[in-house]
Amino acid sequence: MQGNRDPAAKLFGCNESERACFEAGIKLGGIYHQYTGSPVSAESVDALEKAIEAGAKIQPFVSDVRVRIDRTRLRPKKSAYRYTSLKGEMMTVWLQVKYGATVATCEMKYDEELRYTLMRVISISKE
Amino acid sequence: MQGNRDPAAKLFGCNESERACFEAGIKLGGIYHQYTGSPVSAESVDALEKAIEAGAKIQPFVSDVRVRIDRTRLRPKKSAYRYTSLKGEMMTVWLQVKYGATVATCEMKYDEELRYTLMRVISISKE
Amino acid sequence: MQGNRDPAAKLFGCNESERACFEAGIKLGGIYHQYTGSPVSAESVDALEKAIEAGAKIQPFVSDVRVRIDRTRLRPKKSAYRYTSLKGEMMTVWLQVKYGATVATCEMKYDEELRYTLMRVISISKE
Amino acid sequence: MQGNRDPAAKLFGCNESERACFEAGIKLGGIYHQYTGSPVSAESVDALEKAIEAGAKIQPFVSDVRVRIDRTRLRPKKSAYRYTSLKGEMMTVWLQVKYGATVATCEMKYDEELRYTLMRVISISKE
Repeated sequence: MQGNRDPAAKLFGCNESERACFEAGIKLGGIYHQYTGSPVSAESVDALEKAIEAGAKIQPFVSDVRVRIDRTRLRPKKSAYRYTSLKGEMMTVWLQVKYGATVATCEMKYDEELRYTLMRVISISKE
Repeated sequence: MQGNRDPAAKLFGCNESERACFEAGIKLGGIYHQYTGSPVSAESVDALEKAIEAGAKIQPFVSDVRVRIDRTRLRPKKSAYRYTSLKGEMMTVWLQVKYGATVATCEMKYDEELRYTLMRVISISKE
Repeated sequence: MQGNRDPAAKLFGCNESERACFEAGIKLGGIYHQYTGSPVSAESVDALEKAIEAGAKIQPFVSDVRVRIDRTRLRPKKSAYRYTSLKGEMMTVWLQVKYGATVATCEMKYDEELRYTLMRVISISKE
Repeated sequence: MQGNRDPAAKLFGCNESERACFEAGIKLGGIYHQYTGSPVSAESVDALEKAIEAGAKIQPFVSDVRVRIDRTRLRPKKSAYRYTSLKGEMMTVWLQVKYGATVATCEMKYDEELRYTLMRVISISKE
């Protein structure tokens, strides 16, 4: 629906599914680079997940998003220096972008084999 | 209390109130540079405020913090491009750091006269 | 060339041009959200542009990139508070991603009509 | 000198050395949270160091700064995914702030014992 009334549609030189992938890439790249470095601990992790999700949902053509931060990577709170900084490899993000009738389902997740936080397009479908 | 058991105390060449001001500066500088650029709208602003506060509270020697984002600067949601990016000048942050027996009360707020988002030490007190 | 030896290729459920657009989106979203908020003035703007370009060039499948920060938006240096914070709307980024035989040419630029820093796919071509 | 003509001086409830420490904290907290997450490799590390230094030098009351990113933590470039993201623990920052006649010399550096990227005031001196 949002794609149907995209005021910028005429400025793009690509088709609907390419556009959906482009928009999904923007959001995943944005999440990684915006929030990496944020202080996080067992006390604050829920609020940070919610804020990342809320910030993604309001961006163009995002139809659904889930953000999960790995609790096993958080520090025990034993001293004044009891928190950690969010790293990309601690996040799993599942994201759907709908542009026109096309849905791109994407993911950001640390890949053990590549030793890299990979952002990928899982699938593209037409509604 | 936290200041009393600071495992890094011996590494600092300053007194307690200077340390409190240093720690407060770290947190305000961190908030500004971590979250500036985050997508924000009327739907997401509460979650973003909570996450910034939660992230500040877990940092060393922070005893209290309040974050307020100016709702009048948010965009009406009329199209796909209905959100804005958080700017430092949209935030008001009130922060207390307690180090040992010293409390530094600080603020970050846009100053109209300076045309600058000023971070300042409001007062320092001893408990 | 890089696309031909992409060790993650099998994890993607999309074609070559969709992948190129996805990768381009990641980089533009990343640039916006990584560097927004950086202090910048007439003295530092060249170094910041070079760093943003250098950081983009090393990312997967980027074949070319140009970053330009609008000098007319920088502050005159008259006082201690003589710099500004980088905003997305001050940046123009031109980016080419090559994946396999497909080249996606993209841009990030403030759009006056939309009042929005638009990231867009200018064109897609096959080599 | 800059401290002598600080247009915001009257808004602060602290002395000159507390102010110098506050300003130093702002800069170190800002560096950490602004640049953490930036893509970096052997090819781009010089440009990133220069940009961080240039950005710090233009901020209020900074008289000197050195930024060093640990090259041993960078990745060998063997595949498309050949870079890393800057982490706070990879940076060593040495910073001097001069406010009025007071100089605060500070540092940010990973502390092995604390397992923490510690920002600290090394010394305060009067000119």
